[in-house]
Amino acid sequence: MRVVDLIRRKRDGEEHSSEEIRTLIDGYTRGDIPDYQMSAWLMAAFLRGLSGAETAALTSAMLHSGKVLDFSDVPGRKVDKHSTGGVGDKTSLIVAPIAAAAGVRVPMISGRGLGHTGGTLDKLESIPGFNVNLSLAEFRHALETVGCGLIGQTAEIAPADKKMYALRDVTGTVEHRSLICASIMSKKLAEGLDALVLDVKVGSGAFLKTEADATLLAELMVETGRRMGKQVVALLTDMDQPLGRMAGNAMEIAESLAVLSGAGPDDLRELCLALSAWMLLLGERVKTIEEGKRVAADLIVSGRAREKFREIIKQQGGDARVVDDPKRLARATHTLDVVSGADGYVSATQCEQLGVACVVLGGGREKKEDAIDPAVGLVFHKRIGDGVRRGEPLCTLHYNSDARLDEARRLVETAYKISPRPPAAGRALVGRVIGG
Amino acid sequence: MRVVDLIRRKRDGEEHSSEEIRTLIDGYTRGDIPDYQMSAWLMAAFLRGLSGAETAALTSAMLHSGKVLDFSDVPGRKVDKHSTGGVGDKTSLIVAPIAAAAGVRVPMISGRGLGHTGGTLDKLESIPGFNVNLSLAEFRHALETVGCGLIGQTAEIAPADKKMYALRDVTGTVEHRSLICASIMSKKLAEGLDALVLDVKVGSGAFLKTEADATLLAELMVETGRRMGKQVVALLTDMDQPLGRMAGNAMEIAESLAVLSGAGPDDLRELCLALSAWMLLLGERVKTIEEGKRVAADLIVSGRAREKFREIIKQQGGDARVVDDPKRLARATHTLDVVSGADGYVSATQCEQLGVACVVLGGGREKKEDAIDPAVGLVFHKRIGDGVRRGEPLCTLHYNSDARLDEARRLVETAYKISPRPPAAGRALVGRVIGG
Repeated sequence: MRVVDLIRRKRDGEEHSSEEIRTLIDGYTRGDIPDYQMSAWLMAAFLRGLSGAETAALTSAMLHSGKVLDFSDVPGRKVDKHSTGGVGDKTSLIVAPIAAAAGVRVPMISGRGLGHTGGTLDKLESIPGFNVNLSLAEFRHALETVGCGLIGQTAEIAPADKKMYALRDVTGTVEHRSLICASIMSKKLAEGLDALVLDVKVGSGAFLKTEADATLLAELMVETGRRMGKQVVALLTDMDQPLGRMAGNAMEIAESLAVLSGAGPDDLRELCLALSAWMLLLGERVKTIEEGKRVAADLIVSGRAREKFREIIKQQGGDARVVDDPKRLARATHTLDVVSGADGYVSATQCEQLGVACVVLGGGREKKEDAIDPAVGLVFHKRIGDGVRRGEPLCTLHYNSDARLDEARRLVETAYKISPRPPAAGRALVGRVIGG
Repeated sequence: MRVVDLIRRKRDGEEHSSEEIRTLIDGYTRGDIPDYQMSAWLMAAFLRGLSGAETAALTSAMLHSGKVLDFSDVPGRKVDKHSTGGVGDKTSLIVAPIAAAAGVRVPMISGRGLGHTGGTLDKLESIPGFNVNLSLAEFRHALETVGCGLIGQTAEIAPADKKMYALRDVTGTVEHRSLICASIMSKKLAEGLDALVLDVKVGSGAFLKTEADATLLAELMVETGRRMGKQVVALLTDMDQPLGRMAGNAMEIAESLAVLSGAGPDDLRELCLALSAWMLLLGERVKTIEEGKRVAADLIVSGRAREKFREIIKQQGGDARVVDDPKRLARATHTLDVVSGADGYVSATQCEQLGVACVVLGGGREKKEDAIDPAVGLVFHKRIGDGVRRGEPLCTLHYNSDARLDEARRLVETAYKISPRPPAAGRALVGRVIGG
């Protein structure tokens, strides 16, 4: 069958066979199918949709476009966590050490910041010396010895996804749940996992703004994982406001260390315990979620999770002294408070705007080639429901250059909605669990 | 606005401004917008549709991507005819001389055969020496002196259409009425016309199989022409069976000469008189369609239309002796009759299949670079409704090589449906007139 006939089939709303999807993805990865045919197919798939079976076939074809790691000879269950991305979401930095300290193997391949969201790799690189570019042999060694490796996507992992993602980005075919699912799952399943915990964000700071959309994506990812023989659980979690009190690369490392030291903000701690508990359950270290949360909390109190983070940093060449002395992390030279213009209550935040403000200060990339300033970021003083007086700080900007300070300030100022009365209770931090 | 944002707007079903469409088409023609973005936009436009205003803006942008001829200083009304393509459709070869003989200027830019349909240029080139590649200066001279020029699309005319058509062909975005309309109208309006008569084919041998689809396309082309200040009339005409008795390049020249000599099959003659009448009406040579038909018929009887064809051939370097002696045209060396397997009536034809049979014999192209054999073709002995005896010929194949003769024979054999009773009356040859 010619490629144009495959495009026409999808255009007309027909369902592809697995073989058709493999033909398409293999041909595209090899370079036999040009970008202009793939982009027409992607748009047809975007508008006509893909069935569950097609999504699984697409995920499988993208997964097998590259190297699929095999850690079956490494003892213990291999479990990872993946978040769909939000503002201040530093849970990977906390749950990976907790799970590894409990004896779960965590082979985590992460991404860079994307749009208004931060990226685990960028945060890790704010630790002096930390190397996210391990070879696959080094990655395996880290998993065998420390129980955890934290690396970036290599050219060998799911090359079809890399090529397709770049194309989707410039052809308006990003925000479709089957394509998102295949992109995430093809990379995650290349990690040689037994199980995966998904943190699907929903709200004003997430890519998916409504609970209905987030639920559909979560269900599709769980179904896709199962079709491919993996245990997958998805937690729907709130992203109507930033997670924790800090956004910015080095600042998020500091806040993660605070949680691992038994301190840190309640919301961040609560979500990390929930995610860790699921990792421990799927990693067969506990029998129930309640037990998982208890074990995770104990690993924090005993200092074992914090020690595991130190081991991970050392293993990947980073300066482990930051664990005891977070002041060694980069710090911005200036601060500016954004204050409330009225007495009242914080009733909502335009959370995505807060993420963009952090990017504008230099904490993220607008173009792929932009350099990141690890020191800059935001400290959030007020959460939704908090009372505030006129002139009281809502958020502090940490910055090194005032080139775009005004822009960032305006974004933050307009991100907070202050109302005379307290808002009704919002979304629960951890909502539905799908596939559990 | 970034190109990706334009794609997303169309993807989400929004309506483009004229300026947005111009940005897209100009950027694509210049090469600033890559194929992969245009193909994504084309698929979004295919599935979301384009409004009448968007279609006119697209036509205008494609028209102005190249040279727009201006014949306003050539006296007389400039009128052309365009057909959406069918089997045995040689009306251009007949109506252009008739209209020119009546004093209408006919600047006709035609195409090559496409799929199962023949092309006016291929037919003209079966006249020894006939040159369809006039320069624009020669084209103007032909229009001024003979009153008619018959040429192919040059690189200067609607380059956006040329580039987009090649892309649509390989990305499954051909069969959409707004895209078809813009492609046809951008080329035709570049001819410097005052008015245009469209012959929109409907039936088993047309690109549009149903009357509803053909009507929608016809309405859109008429509307688009009017938005651009041109008089446009569309005739819906039957293509459930071949037009006339012959298909094949030289054979269609011979049949055209027969009509211009007062002979030829009734259906072909009737359609040519109707199309000529509309050209004469829009060309302001007559006051009514009835008068137009009478004048056209008179131009045939008087031999003036035939003399005009001779002048056109001479003007473009062709051997005008074929007008008096059609045997000078190429003739195939072998013939094969396809006979009826039963007594009965021809109740239907798979007309597209008959067109494909002609291509298979060498009368058309399967790939752009294929050479055409001008001599081969089909002679149709029976029309829908005709009685036939078992063993009586339905169609004669004229061929030079038997390499694919069996394939052509099978296509023709299975294209005729013979039934014991005569079929109900079919579609009228000339149906609705839109915009008249």
